[in-house]
Amino acid sequence: MRVLAITGGVGGAKLALGLSKVLPPEDLLFAVNTGDDFTHMGLHISPDIDSLTYALAEQNNAELGWGRAGETWHFIETLDALGGEAWFRLGDKDLALHTRRTELLRGGATLTEATALISQAMGIRHTIAPMSDDGVATIVHTADGDLAFQHYFVRDRCEPAVTGFSFQGVEDATLNPLITRWLADCDAVIVCPSNPFVSVDPMLALGDFRTQLSRKPVIAVSPIVGGLAIKGPAAKMMAELNVPASAAAVADYYGELLAGFVLDATDADQAEQIAGPTRVTNTIMDSLDARVALAETCLEFATQVANPRT
Amino acid sequence: MRVLAITGGVGGAKLALGLSKVLPPEDLLFAVNTGDDFTHMGLHISPDIDSLTYALAEQNNAELGWGRAGETWHFIETLDALGGEAWFRLGDKDLALHTRRTELLRGGATLTEATALISQAMGIRHTIAPMSDDGVATIVHTADGDLAFQHYFVRDRCEPAVTGFSFQGVEDATLNPLITRWLADCDAVIVCPSNPFVSVDPMLALGDFRTQLSRKPVIAVSPIVGGLAIKGPAAKMMAELNVPASAAAVADYYGELLAGFVLDATDADQAEQIAGPTRVTNTIMDSLDARVALAETCLEFATQVANPRT
Repeated sequence: MRVLAITGGVGGAKLALGLSKVLPPEDLLFAVNTGDDFTHMGLHISPDIDSLTYALAEQNNAELGWGRAGETWHFIETLDALGGEAWFRLGDKDLALHTRRTELLRGGATLTEATALISQAMGIRHTIAPMSDDGVATIVHTADGDLAFQHYFVRDRCEPAVTGFSFQGVEDATLNPLITRWLADCDAVIVCPSNPFVSVDPMLALGDFRTQLSRKPVIAVSPIVGGLAIKGPAAKMMAELNVPASAAAVADYYGELLAGFVLDATDADQAEQIAGPTRVTNTIMDSLDARVALAETCLEFATQVANPRT
Repeated sequence: MRVLAITGGVGGAKLALGLSKVLPPEDLLFAVNTGDDFTHMGLHISPDIDSLTYALAEQNNAELGWGRAGETWHFIETLDALGGEAWFRLGDKDLALHTRRTELLRGGATLTEATALISQAMGIRHTIAPMSDDGVATIVHTADGDLAFQHYFVRDRCEPAVTGFSFQGVEDATLNPLITRWLADCDAVIVCPSNPFVSVDPMLALGDFRTQLSRKPVIAVSPIVGGLAIKGPAAKMMAELNVPASAAAVADYYGELLAGFVLDATDADQAEQIAGPTRVTNTIMDSLDARVALAETCLEFATQVANPRT
């Protein structure tokens, strides 16, 4: 089975790691949101690519829930003491990755090429495809005005109430050709448990990606469990957008895109509200085994929805 | 007594600290070489300003002999592992200083303003005046071709044999007005024990600085002791330039600029070869007390050469 996995931040990256343990590199491509990318202190920072890179390299920081394992903070603490801009907590090791990416981009590499070189240097065999090599910037519309994503997410700690989103530059951006080619002959698409509004929607807004996806069996895993997001502002955003913060509402939001929906056992009673096939399972990936188990369930479910007669 | 102290790297910075313990900020200005400055990974790096900043803040790394005290290396080690450019060993804390400077310069500050903000943030009360706010780049001419200073100094570990030096941009650069104004009513100039070719000469090549200095009593402290440079390539350069690597040759090199020369007790026998007044003392500043003692000796000697009848 050849799979395209769509992923955003840390939650999606957990399932991505599980999938990477089950499918070999020739059968699995990761399409990753770059709408959160931004330039900070002259560095090109790609938070979602990095979350996936650290997860696949098994170098993610489990204690913090973000960033790199074994991180230290001497750079940012010193910068803070010198009066510098320290709201974006760059770890010493994480900073090296941004520096390397920026060095490669300055040297003429595309984001796809830079990502490949960095992930290979970290021992990753699977391909991480940024959604686009062109710049797309998620803008969060809030009651306090428009905010660049990282200002909303990190600096303002997701406090402003959201009213909507836009993806600056998306009209002129091209879907990564690696993804287009992969979609031509893959068997299924798995939308990892990522934020629908700011991790998945930027990709769906790219060219005819949504149309291309509609030709494939697409399953999604709920990022909402028991009315809460495992991580990040998805539930808070849903409440602010007057959508119930529930797994069923996520399924409804994706709508006709989906051939199947995976939700947590906690929310089993919502399965009947969801149009189309569902799979109820444990989606809380608190161990490597749980990540692999959810990956296997998703692949089995995807096979089933792709071939409904079998 | 109002003093201008000219200084380059780590050796000069030791005497600078001693001087800062004796003279208050209103009586002491540091003029610092910026010919070693370079842009690396998008950062503006000013090695000599930083050596002085760390020395005056008593945050210099005494074990390494360069860089910042209590330094860690997670950034550069990670960058190296990712295949990045790691020959310039940027410590995690040192990197923060370069980042802050670059941030200030990008925001429109001059190098003088950025230096003032950073040194104040580190608790330094004396003024550090970069020799110029304009870019001047020391080029090392070698048997292997021309090299940018840091490529010669760090990347190639001073291995190529030097044949000469030039200071790119010096014709269009203006001496820092802080220095010009200070010179107008200072009593003496002390050239700290820095490399004559690559720390002091870039300043002497700026506009009419040499002419301005000729109106003041200038004393210099030998960076060569017992035929060796305490630190850095001065002695090796002298040999390659067919100049004896000796204190007397340094005095001769500065020539008419000097009203007096301070040399180490080790080289006492060279005093009689030197034209003009000399002071023989301990110049090896292996403790704070030794730095202060040499500063006091220099100030007393400068007073004497400035007022020869007293």
